[in-house]
Amino acid sequence: VDPQQRERPAAPEPLAYGVFCGEGSSPRLGMRYGERVIDLLRFAECSLLDGVPEASRVFAAPRLNDFMELGPSAWSACLDGVQSAIDDDDDAIWTSSIPLDEVTLLRPFDVGDFVDFYASKHHAGTASKLLRPGSEIPECWPYLPLGYHSRGGNIVVSGEPVHRPWGQFLPKGAVRPVYGETQSLDFELELGFVVGVPSDGSPVRPADALAHVFGLVLLNDWSARDIQVFESRPLGPFLGKAFATSIAPWVVPVELLVDLRVPAGVQDPAPLDHLLVDIEAHVFDLPLEAAIRSSSMEVPDLVCQTNARHLYWSVEQQIAHLTSGGARLRTGDLLGSGTISGPDRLSRACMLEITDHGATPLVLSDGTSRTYVQDGDEVVIRGHGLGTLQSLVVAATRVPASSTSRDR
Amino acid sequence: VDPQQRERPAAPEPLAYGVFCGEGSSPRLGMRYGERVIDLLRFAECSLLDGVPEASRVFAAPRLNDFMELGPSAWSACLDGVQSAIDDDDDAIWTSSIPLDEVTLLRPFDVGDFVDFYASKHHAGTASKLLRPGSEIPECWPYLPLGYHSRGGNIVVSGEPVHRPWGQFLPKGAVRPVYGETQSLDFELELGFVVGVPSDGSPVRPADALAHVFGLVLLNDWSARDIQVFESRPLGPFLGKAFATSIAPWVVPVELLVDLRVPAGVQDPAPLDHLLVDIEAHVFDLPLEAAIRSSSMEVPDLVCQTNARHLYWSVEQQIAHLTSGGARLRTGDLLGSGTISGPDRLSRACMLEITDHGATPLVLSDGTSRTYVQDGDEVVIRGHGLGTLQSLVVAATRVPASSTSRDR
Repeated sequence: VDPQQRERPAAPEPLAYGVFCGEGSSPRLGMRYGERVIDLLRFAECSLLDGVPEASRVFAAPRLNDFMELGPSAWSACLDGVQSAIDDDDDAIWTSSIPLDEVTLLRPFDVGDFVDFYASKHHAGTASKLLRPGSEIPECWPYLPLGYHSRGGNIVVSGEPVHRPWGQFLPKGAVRPVYGETQSLDFELELGFVVGVPSDGSPVRPADALAHVFGLVLLNDWSARDIQVFESRPLGPFLGKAFATSIAPWVVPVELLVDLRVPAGVQDPAPLDHLLVDIEAHVFDLPLEAAIRSSSMEVPDLVCQTNARHLYWSVEQQIAHLTSGGARLRTGDLLGSGTISGPDRLSRACMLEITDHGATPLVLSDGTSRTYVQDGDEVVIRGHGLGTLQSLVVAATRVPASSTSRDR
Repeated sequence: VDPQQRERPAAPEPLAYGVFCGEGSSPRLGMRYGERVIDLLRFAECSLLDGVPEASRVFAAPRLNDFMELGPSAWSACLDGVQSAIDDDDDAIWTSSIPLDEVTLLRPFDVGDFVDFYASKHHAGTASKLLRPGSEIPECWPYLPLGYHSRGGNIVVSGEPVHRPWGQFLPKGAVRPVYGETQSLDFELELGFVVGVPSDGSPVRPADALAHVFGLVLLNDWSARDIQVFESRPLGPFLGKAFATSIAPWVVPVELLVDLRVPAGVQDPAPLDHLLVDIEAHVFDLPLEAAIRSSSMEVPDLVCQTNARHLYWSVEQQIAHLTSGGARLRTGDLLGSGTISGPDRLSRACMLEITDHGATPLVLSDGTSRTYVQDGDEVVIRGHGLGTLQSLVVAATRVPASSTSRDR
């Protein structure tokens, strides 16, 4: 390794896990260290990683799931091993790592069940009014961290383009739906919690919930509002949310973020006993932001500045609620927080809220305006320590079935 | 093999795939043949199964997924190989098979995304009115096969007991919810379609949809109506459906059931082009029934007699709709039809409809009555050629978190 490259990152982001593919190497596990990625397979070969059983198998897998299944002692052993080598300036850190710009980052894990919650009260209040004029925050909302299952099979990683989806919706004033490209493609800035430790169907108490979490990842829950509104009564969002959900390539171990936990706000009404945390509910003090760059812009415009501490329902309460009726957790399950909007206008974390469902268009620095996201826009989400999640929106290129069959 | 056991089944059910565990043998793939299960690993060793690559790997797996990933040519090769051996009265059939009563049948596949549709118009109409007095069939229902994602991680197999779930609901007249045992535990008689061939996010045309299906399985989508009603606006059913979904142990290859396809009823309004089948929509002429046996009864009472031909939306249309916006199919995805109620009273296929949400209790032959399913009841679902799906409902034994924390 060139000595010039051998510089410790000045203010390093926390270590984080990902899956990468280097030139001529198969996809495998890596750990982010500054602007480099440590090839864990090579690291385990040239350094001691006691406590990670079957390292040559789990690190050679193209997904984190096998490693996550080893459980918390193996996770800690891996982190400790890498951290010690960094502290000792061990050669293994440098001989087993590659500059980030020489690798491709892949989706870090295979997703089992994907639950998306609705844990920001600011978002739930505003979104209810905007999507369904006249409706208020749902009556059950104050009593439980409301959520729904979404599509685990359509989780993509930062850098993968997102195609504008087709779907059925009611054009304004129409009485019959059309099948066409969505006219209201939205992003939603969220945090994803990745389940590492499974559960057997017994309720998980809030105090024990974080022990099931492997790590945190930035998440963008793409939404087609017109499709969502048409389909969602009474069974909830379906295809309006199922075409793509983007995640960042880095999963940050929850143990590296525990110092960022702060007490959540007061919950009124008080949750029922099984959702009460022993001391108090905690949220993460994690600054988050979203930006949009049109194809004519060099630098993205900041459109949202928020913080994970604005969430009303903590992840512990989300897990306690999810498991309160017998639902089992599997390694690889993904729990989205829901849109993390805060109390002020700049903290609105999706276009639905930013533009008041199109009534207050957003003007970008290139002079163009937006009611929703346009083709050619890049949506960039950043989170303190969590890296960057960027996705280019591309035109719907798919030939819908109707055009094909019409030709025959 | 005892020659007495070597009798061909008189009116055999179709061959079907499952996962079994024999005495001293690890879980592996089997094929139902009458009252026996053919150990496919042993069969492949003593007979020719050209066209099933890596037979020793995929047949030794504790789930069908690896075999399903091989694709339709391998599926046909396996069926053809077994059928030829049966036709030739090949010794391999007998030397590689075991009586069914000597094995344990396991959940046949790992479930990716589980979508539950709402494809019976009879059910959608009745259920809407009963669950939400004053509401009609949803406005979008006539235009698309409505569905929602449910929990793949809580799919259990026939024979596994189902625990009455806890959850939050509003007791009658109350203004605040309680967290308690559901008072309205229901079954739902459904068909499950198992995805074998994945898709890449392009829309699948109805005419091509069945080619993605590996097989059919009986399905019971357990529902806690009080929990479901409290939580489901606006995000749809969540924990009221996530505690358990039971499936039969046998997945019947779709190619063995194509002769049962019959034209579906007229669809009015006509579906949009992308949901139109070239000729016409097809459904399966599959008689189905549900029965309940209380702990004091010997024989279960028939409570529902219906037929899969009563479905309004065909599985081809379900798949075409699901993929119409970019959702990808993965091997192991499960598509539930929704409750298969028919036009007459006996064809109502869940307790919600059978008892009019409790208003018309069901009287069993032991003299007891039911508004919903009680602890100790066994729910038995049978389908022509699909085997039996039986589940015992047991009391909620879990200690809810609140009781625990109160003691400390």
